[in-house]
Amino acid sequence: MAEELIGNCLIAQSGGPTAVINSSLAGVITEALNHEEIEEIYGGLNGILGILREDLVDLAEESQQTIRGLRHTPASALGTCRFKLKKATDFDRVLAVFQAHNIRYFFYIGGNDSQDTADHISKLAASRNYPLRVIGIPKTVDNDLVATDHCPGYGSVIKYVAATVREIACDNEGMGQGDLVSILEVMGRNAGWIAAGATLAKRREHPNDAPHLIYLPEVAFSPQKYLDDVQRVLSKRKYCFVVVGEGLVDQDGNYLATASGQTDSFGHAQLGGAGEYLRDMVEQNLGVKARVAKLGLGQRAAAHCASQTDNNESFMAGQAAVKAAVVQGETNKMVTLIRGDGDQYSCETGLCDLEDVANGVKMVPVNWINDDGVSLNFQFTKYALPLITGEAEVPYENGVPKFVHLNKIRVDKMLDSHVFE
Amino acid sequence: MAEELIGNCLIAQSGGPTAVINSSLAGVITEALNHEEIEEIYGGLNGILGILREDLVDLAEESQQTIRGLRHTPASALGTCRFKLKKATDFDRVLAVFQAHNIRYFFYIGGNDSQDTADHISKLAASRNYPLRVIGIPKTVDNDLVATDHCPGYGSVIKYVAATVREIACDNEGMGQGDLVSILEVMGRNAGWIAAGATLAKRREHPNDAPHLIYLPEVAFSPQKYLDDVQRVLSKRKYCFVVVGEGLVDQDGNYLATASGQTDSFGHAQLGGAGEYLRDMVEQNLGVKARVAKLGLGQRAAAHCASQTDNNESFMAGQAAVKAAVVQGETNKMVTLIRGDGDQYSCETGLCDLEDVANGVKMVPVNWINDDGVSLNFQFTKYALPLITGEAEVPYENGVPKFVHLNKIRVDKMLDSHVFE
Repeated sequence: MAEELIGNCLIAQSGGPTAVINSSLAGVITEALNHEEIEEIYGGLNGILGILREDLVDLAEESQQTIRGLRHTPASALGTCRFKLKKATDFDRVLAVFQAHNIRYFFYIGGNDSQDTADHISKLAASRNYPLRVIGIPKTVDNDLVATDHCPGYGSVIKYVAATVREIACDNEGMGQGDLVSILEVMGRNAGWIAAGATLAKRREHPNDAPHLIYLPEVAFSPQKYLDDVQRVLSKRKYCFVVVGEGLVDQDGNYLATASGQTDSFGHAQLGGAGEYLRDMVEQNLGVKARVAKLGLGQRAAAHCASQTDNNESFMAGQAAVKAAVVQGETNKMVTLIRGDGDQYSCETGLCDLEDVANGVKMVPVNWINDDGVSLNFQFTKYALPLITGEAEVPYENGVPKFVHLNKIRVDKMLDSHVFE
Repeated sequence: MAEELIGNCLIAQSGGPTAVINSSLAGVITEALNHEEIEEIYGGLNGILGILREDLVDLAEESQQTIRGLRHTPASALGTCRFKLKKATDFDRVLAVFQAHNIRYFFYIGGNDSQDTADHISKLAASRNYPLRVIGIPKTVDNDLVATDHCPGYGSVIKYVAATVREIACDNEGMGQGDLVSILEVMGRNAGWIAAGATLAKRREHPNDAPHLIYLPEVAFSPQKYLDDVQRVLSKRKYCFVVVGEGLVDQDGNYLATASGQTDSFGHAQLGGAGEYLRDMVEQNLGVKARVAKLGLGQRAAAHCASQTDNNESFMAGQAAVKAAVVQGETNKMVTLIRGDGDQYSCETGLCDLEDVANGVKMVPVNWINDDGVSLNFQFTKYALPLITGEAEVPYENGVPKFVHLNKIRVDKMLDSHVFE
């Protein structure tokens, strides 16, 4: 048993949301209620911004029905942000807010940038001798965090993408007369995990099922090879189904399609248009009709098509974070998902150092990609298939999925306001 | 009882498919098996093209499991086409194929162009004294057929669109900081039924829920009003959710966004890019970030989110077509859906003349659109809500919806091949 640390806990969500990120939030809240060491359960609104602004809400005030409803409500119920903590005065402010509200447990649900932030906060608290236990909880549809077998949120996005591919393929199959290229643009900035997941739309023993061509950022894109690939497929089939990740790069590592060259506040390029780019290439060079679908934000919010396995693991990751902090006395760690060795898929949680995960990026292994550069082999399927297993049941109201909204009862502010950029 | 007409029946599908068009096919097949007047049950591949080519399949050879599976398999299992019959020699060919295969019942599942084709075939047969009963079965996600309360396929597409709006709105709500415009482009060439259906994402008594602005082709688009609309919403809320139909027209009736001015073989403009058009306007004129999602073909194939009501009515329309032809001896009619008068929604089938529905277009009534031009009133909701009720259950295999594929056992050809353009 760890040394007893009594105080309040704070949970926040950061970065792009997923269909099941609130399931992790529900896991934290549910588990926190089991431990007397945790007195108040606070939420920070809009990630680190809410902490800087001292915008805290009392999560214990929410009804049990609402907490249960979080398990199938997509996106960040507490709000999220893409703000990156940099200035020393901002870090000081975070610690001041924690001290003012006696925060002793900080759970941050996010991707690699968020885990980097958590790492810095954890180390700052240690250097100031402020007892604080910080545990990160992974989430990202991109599945690109290192140190964890996979990321909560990934199974649900690829379940939705694979279902969509299979459905659009039915449409193409019925419409196609050997003259149709169907393009689906999916998310994935640096790694091709989401695009790769589309391969799960293929039935077993039906390698010629859609998708026929999958373009991942892991493989440098060659325009001529792309045109050859499309012609090869169309010479044999009624239509050619292409899946492309937004982060398509050429041989020099430059993005092929960027929306006006903008970057976000983390310095990431704002991507978009990979689908249109591939459509225009086909229409202009091959004279073949092409149709584009772009799921956009819908893919990371598709709770109506979420994976039960993913949902369960997200909840479990939230619970594990609380247990690690309270029972084991851990800090400066992120919860990881560890796959069992057996033939039957199993998954349990572990812990890794925050600094090991911060800012790392896990790519799709090159040896999981076939030599043609546009399809995945059995190793990918073996990895990904268990993650989409099971259909999360979502309640409906008036024919549409029913989601919950937090009441967001504010915690009284104790400090003066803080100016930050 | 009608005069007994014994022979074979032929079913074909035409135009853009829907999530439930195969449910109508299953309805026809299931009902045809009940009537001894119908000897063989044939399907024509790729609509009228399969008839011109004498590409017929024996649907009675398919397993019962497959026919049952059609009820939740999206898109046209028999294949479809956008070919328009024009030449007298082609019409003669259709009749020759019918005669060669003793086709006495022709069921054509399609939109207004397809019903026009069915009308011509029916009249040609009558003029040649060839006993043939022709019944059209409506289908179109566009919901723009006249003479029927609504169209099979519509309830499912708007259920999926409304679910997607609600999900993306959760994402926007969590991400938004008063600086986000979220745009969803949906189908709808001439009528705004699909875009209008997005309003069902709003919870009751929550008029400020997304979508905030809905642009329909029924209302002439004004760029300045659009920018004013967006600013008005952003002045009050964290994000602005825009839904736009692909067929956005200006005050002179010209499409605002067309993909390289192409037209299809019916002479319809090929649309695309309305979402990008609205995004660029906002970013360039207001300096506000905008994100676009374009569901593309996915929306009309989304069987995983289909409406049970729509699915049931589509099946019922198929059954009704057979009963009308065989039992009532009707011909040259299309099945219609008639809404009951009661407080509780009910629906039964009727019949209308094919020529009444051919080439007509039903718009969203102007008095269902609020004065602001960008939202729908209670009359629309009263009309549309029952159509999305109930969730069609889809079987899953390996985490993805399981669809059936017809074996397509070919019927021996009796004629020489026919050349057509």
